[in-house]
Amino acid sequence: MSAKHTWPIRVYWEDTDAGGIVFYANYLKFFERGRTEWLRSLELHQQTLKTTVGGMFVVSETQVRYHQPCRLDDVVIVETELLQVGRVAIDLRQTVWLQSAHPVRLCTGDIRVGWVDAVTLKPTRMPPTLTNALKRP
Amino acid sequence: MSAKHTWPIRVYWEDTDAGGIVFYANYLKFFERGRTEWLRSLELHQQTLKTTVGGMFVVSETQVRYHQPCRLDDVVIVETELLQVGRVAIDLRQTVWLQSAHPVRLCTGDIRVGWVDAVTLKPTRMPPTLTNALKRP
Amino acid sequence: MSAKHTWPIRVYWEDTDAGGIVFYANYLKFFERGRTEWLRSLELHQQTLKTTVGGMFVVSETQVRYHQPCRLDDVVIVETELLQVGRVAIDLRQTVWLQSAHPVRLCTGDIRVGWVDAVTLKPTRMPPTLTNALKRP
Amino acid sequence: MSAKHTWPIRVYWEDTDAGGIVFYANYLKFFERGRTEWLRSLELHQQTLKTTVGGMFVVSETQVRYHQPCRLDDVVIVETELLQVGRVAIDLRQTVWLQSAHPVRLCTGDIRVGWVDAVTLKPTRMPPTLTNALKRP
Repeated sequence: MSAKHTWPIRVYWEDTDAGGIVFYANYLKFFERGRTEWLRSLELHQQTLKTTVGGMFVVSETQVRYHQPCRLDDVVIVETELLQVGRVAIDLRQTVWLQSAHPVRLCTGDIRVGWVDAVTLKPTRMPPTLTNALKRP
Repeated sequence: MSAKHTWPIRVYWEDTDAGGIVFYANYLKFFERGRTEWLRSLELHQQTLKTTVGGMFVVSETQVRYHQPCRLDDVVIVETELLQVGRVAIDLRQTVWLQSAHPVRLCTGDIRVGWVDAVTLKPTRMPPTLTNALKRP
Repeated sequence: MSAKHTWPIRVYWEDTDAGGIVFYANYLKFFERGRTEWLRSLELHQQTLKTTVGGMFVVSETQVRYHQPCRLDDVVIVETELLQVGRVAIDLRQTVWLQSAHPVRLCTGDIRVGWVDAVTLKPTRMPPTLTNALKRP
Repeated sequence: MSAKHTWPIRVYWEDTDAGGIVFYANYLKFFERGRTEWLRSLELHQQTLKTTVGGMFVVSETQVRYHQPCRLDDVVIVETELLQVGRVAIDLRQTVWLQSAHPVRLCTGDIRVGWVDAVTLKPTRMPPTLTNALKRP
């Protein structure tokens, strides 16, 4: 359905914890940045979607495996792959790699993102302009 | 003008960084929690204010000194003291103490918080119900 | 194996995003606070474990479902239930409830937490003092 | 003493709060990223400094003014200017600008960053390799 989108992220102090590694919740921030940049690469801007179409994406399910830790100053690559476009949700596979001569897989996520009305927050059908943009090869 | 309000906070993994100590930005989260709980103690609920009065508090200026670090599992006390109530802003002195037999001052903040229209975000005069509640001894 | 541990958390500005609801990564912070307080209820303090036993807990896998959003000023209850104690990891079921006369289930997580050497970060066998404390009814 | 270093940052969901704008503490994250990238531009890598020289930078004082808010999808530019190099601390002026045809000043920070021993966290004199690198024009 789609090529994989990649996005590089530097690990800063804010991302780490006293264990010396990136705090587990912060990989979800990395995933979110990867999704936003993937949407931008399709010319889908979420602030604009919210004000024009009245909807927004909200994560409804995640399955995440943490394989290896990473540390301050590392650069990671967030890879985002669209698996499926449904009527009210999309399924993504996202992987965080440690950038290096031999990239190491740090974290893998299967993420379901639902489309909801921005006011009621109820699941709602994605508008055709959105699904078409997502399905465009 | 007012007694000092105090609020205890446990330091969790999320608050620390790879230096082994609480990340400097997170003291502003502690200050914010302290302000919210101080407002709640005055029966001022920000979500309610936003929907009924149409305004919200936004920080406009901070001056913060970091005296000593703190670590995972520490308990800190956020002390909040109202210094002044203006027409469009209030001034607070907030101090974070390490809870112990001999409390240690960790961080001191002089914080100005403005009152803004929740839609335009422009500074606006605080409604009398708000200033009265703030000034009540 | 164990009773459910519960821990209340107030939703502050820092937890929300521009969608008006709690940002999805922040539920993992709530889960972590719930786990830390559950461990504390068993007299297991992570900073102490790190310096005395040389190990720490690191999350290796999460499966999270987001059922309903919550908002600024809400109080949520984090419920933590120990499902299984292995040799190098424990399995937990954690649920975030909206506190109300009729509690609403907001978010459910199946969390695997591994025990690792604090220096090498390699999985390692939990010391008997730890497994005994965890299994104590 | 030095040219101004600039670093662009996209505003993501994680940076915003329910007021629809970037949460005030998160500007300190932006400042920190700006400082890290400025140090990197001088070939100073903090993880390396910590392990080789045994010291690290810790913020000791901030004075921040918030002029205008910014929102999801905005791009901001963090400008970092070194004002002074002391024996145990440096002084920086950092400014966050909204990227646009006519840039808007969003936030200004005067930041003092101390050099501390990475173990004891006590202020300590910066090694000559560090001060030389900082003073290099």
